[in-house]
Amino acid sequence: MSAVVNLMDVPVAVDEVLDEFFQATAPILESIHPSVIDKGQALRAFVMTGGKRIRPLFVYAGRQCAGDKITMSKTPDAEREALRVCAAIELIQACALVHDDILDRSDTRRGRPTVHRRFEALHRDRGWDGDARHFGDSAAILVGDLALAWADDLFHGALPTAVGAQPGPDRPVPFAATAVWSQMRTEVLAGQFLDVTNEASGDESVTAAEQVMTYKTAAYTVARPLELGATLGGADESLRAELHGIGIDLGIAFQLRDDLLGVFGDPAETGKPSGDDLVAGKRTALLAAGLAQADETGARTLRSGIGRPLADAEIAAVRAVLTESGAVAEMERQIARRRDSGLARIDALDCDEDARAGLRTLAHRITDRTS
Amino acid sequence: MSAVVNLMDVPVAVDEVLDEFFQATAPILESIHPSVIDKGQALRAFVMTGGKRIRPLFVYAGRQCAGDKITMSKTPDAEREALRVCAAIELIQACALVHDDILDRSDTRRGRPTVHRRFEALHRDRGWDGDARHFGDSAAILVGDLALAWADDLFHGALPTAVGAQPGPDRPVPFAATAVWSQMRTEVLAGQFLDVTNEASGDESVTAAEQVMTYKTAAYTVARPLELGATLGGADESLRAELHGIGIDLGIAFQLRDDLLGVFGDPAETGKPSGDDLVAGKRTALLAAGLAQADETGARTLRSGIGRPLADAEIAAVRAVLTESGAVAEMERQIARRRDSGLARIDALDCDEDARAGLRTLAHRITDRTS
Repeated sequence: MSAVVNLMDVPVAVDEVLDEFFQATAPILESIHPSVIDKGQALRAFVMTGGKRIRPLFVYAGRQCAGDKITMSKTPDAEREALRVCAAIELIQACALVHDDILDRSDTRRGRPTVHRRFEALHRDRGWDGDARHFGDSAAILVGDLALAWADDLFHGALPTAVGAQPGPDRPVPFAATAVWSQMRTEVLAGQFLDVTNEASGDESVTAAEQVMTYKTAAYTVARPLELGATLGGADESLRAELHGIGIDLGIAFQLRDDLLGVFGDPAETGKPSGDDLVAGKRTALLAAGLAQADETGARTLRSGIGRPLADAEIAAVRAVLTESGAVAEMERQIARRRDSGLARIDALDCDEDARAGLRTLAHRITDRTS
Repeated sequence: MSAVVNLMDVPVAVDEVLDEFFQATAPILESIHPSVIDKGQALRAFVMTGGKRIRPLFVYAGRQCAGDKITMSKTPDAEREALRVCAAIELIQACALVHDDILDRSDTRRGRPTVHRRFEALHRDRGWDGDARHFGDSAAILVGDLALAWADDLFHGALPTAVGAQPGPDRPVPFAATAVWSQMRTEVLAGQFLDVTNEASGDESVTAAEQVMTYKTAAYTVARPLELGATLGGADESLRAELHGIGIDLGIAFQLRDDLLGVFGDPAETGKPSGDDLVAGKRTALLAAGLAQADETGARTLRSGIGRPLADAEIAAVRAVLTESGAVAEMERQIARRRDSGLARIDALDCDEDARAGLRTLAHRITDRTS
């Protein structure tokens, strides 16, 4: 019998699964054509360097709530299935980020060049024909597509995983988990679409920002992973619904924290340039609160301080408006309210105290972070 | 007992499934946010207007080779499963085409504006902020992603289908089919990547063009759909392998015909502008043969006649070189050879004469076409 291990060991175990997954898939690409290996390597480099494995942590936390112990011994089918689902969700995340970086025209991610910029550089280095920038975008679209397709293959056990097993149907995912997986992917893709549309249409409302937060982040990052883990553990409908509610609370707090870090974060800690969200023109809840609460001059500063390259002094001016208008304090209040609501609901969960403690730790980790 | 129907009724039945699928998924998007309906409608319009449903025809042909009759009565689980898989494959195709059109910067597809151009126009019409072109690309990337995610959901029965049933695991796809599905998606994405890389690196070799044809088209359009159908029908390994071989032969003949139509096709029949492949700079087998067989002046004409907008006289000059160098005749010989090889292998298949007759009809249809 394997020893029960700590929730915080999950990221390392998932990294191992992902690493061995990329080792196992490299020959598949090579057999198609040696030059396709570039594509696999770009995806591997992206997935393996960075990422906090937040979604896998919530999958395991949800599974623990449903009564499954975390053992991380890789032989039993149930543990293998959970690790496979966690690795799959990290590939969805890779697709979301690689494509999002094209949409946002971001140059860096986690302190390194984004995938489209890497392929743009490769095109230049090799002195190839045509538009390097368009080549970078094209290659990155296809890298994201591969991540999305492979995510499903992993989820359904159709590709080799870290546990050294041949792909096979030895333990098909329960249909309830497949249904949550489906819902989660539709939600994140709809959330991204909403985000892009709100940015283009200049929708400054708090409601618009909230819908994006709910679907692009809260559901996808916390609520659905929790539910997914719970279904793997055989949770009933009422536990699943309660975990979903907790996940939305915590997920919105997570995104509000992210919005604050996107404007006020330290580049050395976040790995993103200073004021990155402003330059990208993101319609965040923070910005919506600033526009609603600032005076006319302040609102002008905010509107002229988004969606274009900014000098340090301009970033400082936007920060001042957001702070002085009370928008920052308002966001901190909302974060505390959502986090506390989540924590109260965690206390009331009908499950193991270990499982509740794990959830509490994650709740603090994602809402009090600085990176 | 339902009446056995003709293979040629498959496209209409698949269209029905797709149409009802889009009706059933619209409320899912609407529940996320009314503005996301635009995204679903763009995908629906794209999938429902045009497309020859070639891949579904091969899925059914393969299934028939494995002994399954085509009944199209939508109640039995086996028929429902086959229609669902066919609809799923058409969504993969939607993703491939929508993203390919961004990569190729195509303005039209099937005689209508491409998805990225539609969203670009919508951005302009509504007088939105920012770069309309970038918005068009962004929205189309997300539409393609949704198609790819939904394809998997449909394949695994996690979304409602045309047959009016609730999603459910009543008949999970056999694992052998899931494995072919996985292989097929990796191959088409690898083939697209190869294509983009060959275009950028200016690889003019016949080998490079052949690898792209094999993976981007032959495997994905014919060989894997045939195999997928065969696995649904419970075919053994040897029938599957033989169908795969036939599929590669026919699929390459199909692509060579497509290459000829891409340069010589009538826009009224193909729905694409005259000389479209030349303007897009596609590294086709036809071009490779032309470069290998033309004299120095001819080769110069070919190299200067790709990858940029072309006047009618320039297109005519390229056509003349391809014809006079013997490249066109060489392509016709290769098409005939591949088609005849496929037909001979079909004759030798150990299956129902009805199934063989169906395959023969499809073999002629895809290699002798004019659109």
